Amino acid sequence: MPADPIEIQGPVLVTGANGFIGRHLCSRLASAGVQVHAIVRSTSLRHPIAASEVVVHGVENSLIEVPALIGDLRPTVVFHLATLFAAQHVPADIQRMVDANITFGTLVADAAARTGARLVHTSSAWQHYGGAEYSPVSLYAATKQAMCDIITYFAETAHLEASEVCLFDTYGPDDDRKKLVWLLLEHAATGAPLPMSSGRQLVDLTHVNDVVSALVEVATAPSPGSRVVVRNGSPLTVRALVDLVEQVTGRPLDTQWGTRPSRPREMIDDWVVAGATSSWRPQVSLKDGIAELWTERTASRD
Amino acid sequence: MPADPIEIQGPVLVTGANGFIGRHLCSRLASAGVQVHAIVRSTSLRHPIAASEVVVHGVENSLIEVPALIGDLRPTVVFHLATLFAAQHVPADIQRMVDANITFGTLVADAAARTGARLVHTSSAWQHYGGAEYSPVSLYAATKQAMCDIITYFAETAHLEASEVCLFDTYGPDDDRKKLVWLLLEHAATGAPLPMSSGRQLVDLTHVNDVVSALVEVATAPSPGSRVVVRNGSPLTVRALVDLVEQVTGRPLDTQWGTRPSRPREMIDDWVVAGATSSWRPQVSLKDGIAELWTERTASRD
Repeated sequence: MPADPIEIQGPVLVTGANGFIGRHLCSRLASAGVQVHAIVRSTSLRHPIAASEVVVHGVENSLIEVPALIGDLRPTVVFHLATLFAAQHVPADIQRMVDANITFGTLVADAAARTGARLVHTSSAWQHYGGAEYSPVSLYAATKQAMCDIITYFAETAHLEASEVCLFDTYGPDDDRKKLVWLLLEHAATGAPLPMSSGRQLVDLTHVNDVVSALVEVATAPSPGSRVVVRNGSPLTVRALVDLVEQVTGRPLDTQWGTRPSRPREMIDDWVVAGATSSWRPQVSLKDGIAELWTERTASRD
Repeated sequence: MPADPIEIQGPVLVTGANGFIGRHLCSRLASAGVQVHAIVRSTSLRHPIAASEVVVHGVENSLIEVPALIGDLRPTVVFHLATLFAAQHVPADIQRMVDANITFGTLVADAAARTGARLVHTSSAWQHYGGAEYSPVSLYAATKQAMCDIITYFAETAHLEASEVCLFDTYGPDDDRKKLVWLLLEHAATGAPLPMSSGRQLVDLTHVNDVVSALVEVATAPSPGSRVVVRNGSPLTVRALVDLVEQVTGRPLDTQWGTRPSRPREMIDDWVVAGATSSWRPQVSLKDGIAELWTERTASRD
């Protein structure tokens, strides 16, 4: 991908920089010449960040180190992407989910407000079951809503310039999350039987390059605020996605529909999530995105 | 106060039981013959709970002990009152505010949902600056909103029967919070000069006996859900409150108006906070409540 110029002066800080979207964002920013700093938990340093130009700060004690780091660095923009996802939770997950999705973000938002950094953060379509302004699918979604409400405090009272990017499903190269698109390509390659739920639920998949473009656009928009909804906009059923993967790969998938339980609160009818008008539009079609992944996968196996 | 009968079968659990409202609630419940259990942090055990009939469970590690305690006890109702208040925060407060106001409550709500207990929790008028559905006055208010978001998740997806009691200002006997009414009576007694802000902001003070009645009513209402707003309903300016204290006590207060800064986002015009219809009405007039406190204070000094 060509490195389009990015109009950000001064250093930028990325949290969750060694996650799927964080890695791609760091690469894009660094290749456009932006000075990128990354906060990474010390325990996560084993996942390297691709772009060598990124300054990585390993953090052991967020409470002490995050305010100090942001205070010293004085970034222009903080991209807060760190998150701990769980489709469903057990009680033992609660402490670390709240720590990761709320406490850490509150420290980041507080420090951004104090230093005058613009904050770009991600929220989730799973906060909007049925398209409601708030109706969570999972405890994960509830913790994301909680974080949005805390950021509202800093925006309303502490002059924080904050922008929310609401993500639906995402996919793309170098995805270590082993989510649906990865799984289908894996099974296209091996031919192994694939237990599935009904497959009637919808997915709305945006390529990570388009997600990164949206984050950059929001960070450089003349006036921050409001929510930008990042979605392909053409949701399809899991069954239709399987058809597309079979078409792109030329391989039949041995899907066993109805052999896995459905998750609660899946997207059966399309959800309309309200967002601000934005010039961002997805550029990568789902077919092209999947074809690219398949080509890379096939090439890497040769 | 006579011990009105309370229609709660089985054990009840109170969090924040050694706080101002928690102590009064425990006394009322115990004197009505309800079997009361209290969760108290081990570090807070030095504040005794008045009612000797209350079974106190000191908790060191909420993450492990709270789910186990609720699972063993299987309470009919959990009154979740534990909260950590801060009018304004510094970064070093963030971790313990989120732990106290979100993580602990999430553990409680999760366990209540799993055991079928009804959950009664308190929220704050400070979440509703200007009467908005959500516009927080402080980080404290934002953490309370975050907790409401998370309880919504359990109510919508995990069959939790939850009711929210939204509190404005509260006062009453045995109040160790050293808030406004206490302060005015203290200065009425001593005659010491009292630096104050403009005094133009409104306060809406509900007597703790009325607060306890609201909590009990919500817990025993036939159908849980929705928010009940607990307020006197006749807010008055701090200057008018000082006049009332002078009238009740017969002592002039040496108030020095305008010598302290105002806090951000005080209530200057009355806020209308939407709530469900409820048969609860405050019974204690502000004048009577203050007179009772003054009488007790004077008697205890004899």
